[in-house]
Amino acid sequence: MPKNTKILEERKHIEVCFSPFLYELHKDDYEIIVVIDVLRATSAICTAFDYGVRSIIPVDSIDIAREYQKKGYLVGAERQGKIVEGFDFGNSPFSFMKEDIKGKDVVLTTTNGTKAIHLAKDADTVVIGSLLNLDALCHWLEKQNKNTLCLCSGWQNKFNLEDTICAGAISEYLINTGKFVSDEDSSIAAKYLYLSAKDNYFGYLKSSSHRRRLRNLNLNEDIKYCLTPNTSKAIPVLNENKLVDIRNQQ
Amino acid sequence: MPKNTKILEERKHIEVCFSPFLYELHKDDYEIIVVIDVLRATSAICTAFDYGVRSIIPVDSIDIAREYQKKGYLVGAERQGKIVEGFDFGNSPFSFMKEDIKGKDVVLTTTNGTKAIHLAKDADTVVIGSLLNLDALCHWLEKQNKNTLCLCSGWQNKFNLEDTICAGAISEYLINTGKFVSDEDSSIAAKYLYLSAKDNYFGYLKSSSHRRRLRNLNLNEDIKYCLTPNTSKAIPVLNENKLVDIRNQQ
Repeated sequence: MPKNTKILEERKHIEVCFSPFLYELHKDDYEIIVVIDVLRATSAICTAFDYGVRSIIPVDSIDIAREYQKKGYLVGAERQGKIVEGFDFGNSPFSFMKEDIKGKDVVLTTTNGTKAIHLAKDADTVVIGSLLNLDALCHWLEKQNKNTLCLCSGWQNKFNLEDTICAGAISEYLINTGKFVSDEDSSIAAKYLYLSAKDNYFGYLKSSSHRRRLRNLNLNEDIKYCLTPNTSKAIPVLNENKLVDIRNQQ
Repeated sequence: MPKNTKILEERKHIEVCFSPFLYELHKDDYEIIVVIDVLRATSAICTAFDYGVRSIIPVDSIDIAREYQKKGYLVGAERQGKIVEGFDFGNSPFSFMKEDIKGKDVVLTTTNGTKAIHLAKDADTVVIGSLLNLDALCHWLEKQNKNTLCLCSGWQNKFNLEDTICAGAISEYLINTGKFVSDEDSSIAAKYLYLSAKDNYFGYLKSSSHRRRLRNLNLNEDIKYCLTPNTSKAIPVLNENKLVDIRNQQ
């Protein structure tokens, strides 16, 4: 984060890391990491809090998820876009829209999103970002006023468009407050991509690889839901290995 | 490279890898790797061939460069945008516009570009891409009609805008021939970024981190030169650890 002028030095940074694979090149100097997995882990997490879940325990392996299942936890497990055999649900936001999760601690493991959460876990603050909680999250990040990195979960460590566009939306908002700057080319590109996508996420992402992958699994309803901004006010933050909604702690 | 339809299967892939750090996730299945380091290694290499160099020997360490120097080779060495102490020139294209390189084998080591060339060296074909040789390279790639990956050198393994835009320009051209498709989100993003940048590279890149870095070193003339498309017809390919211009081999 080179700082060129005195004015820039007084502002906080909002930057974008395109993939968990690149995180080690970026991770220093950020107090807040925003983990983004639009299709679908972080969208599902926001939804779960809107439907009254007490906490989400993100785990990065199927084995650990099974151990929790044996102990009686509700467990969601997804790999390659599908529910893992032996589990009740995966990472579809619709799986979390039900009464029986209310007040419960739910365990979740997914191909990309929960792995990114684990990767970021040593940061001062890890918070969950999606298009669903975009405005609520942006307002909260503005209030925190800290150096912030958006960590895109990507697809199997590769860049993906939907997470990048969400990160670009967050950057654009924070830069427009005048309190934040972006310095990295990845952040500038994310902002450019967001600006071309913002009037029609669905159309813009029609050729994206992950959307195609989910469409082949007949998950069009999930995609539409996850690409609709600002339906949630959840601010899920990591607290001792559990995600809790900051709204319930205030 | 999932292939969704029969028609797609018949076409070749043109894809984009944003950083040498991500290369291991992408490298399989490509017969041609286009190494891109717009500011400035691959631009300098194209320029050198236009000024009659016989070959460029890319080396990835200063130590190896020094050994060649001791043997009497002309050696260019750049790190962090500056000429390395003890060497005659770095990677400014203007350093290669001189009579004394004509017919010579010149050794080059740079922060990003020559490292990316080394990383790609096991591919069937490694070719040098820049904005300078954009059209010539696109025509040549079209004729080869092989699965092609653009490997952006980036900046210290991070994503950079100028290499991505150059990769997006190559992808856009090849897709428009009808003989190629892109499947990866990185390729789609590169194309989007190129389409927004193409009418004014210089303006588009004004906030990019690497351009700022070079501007601070007073290298504005280099930047202008490297961002001017189609001044060169060079097609430098790697042949037993030396880059040679395919024009001289036909």
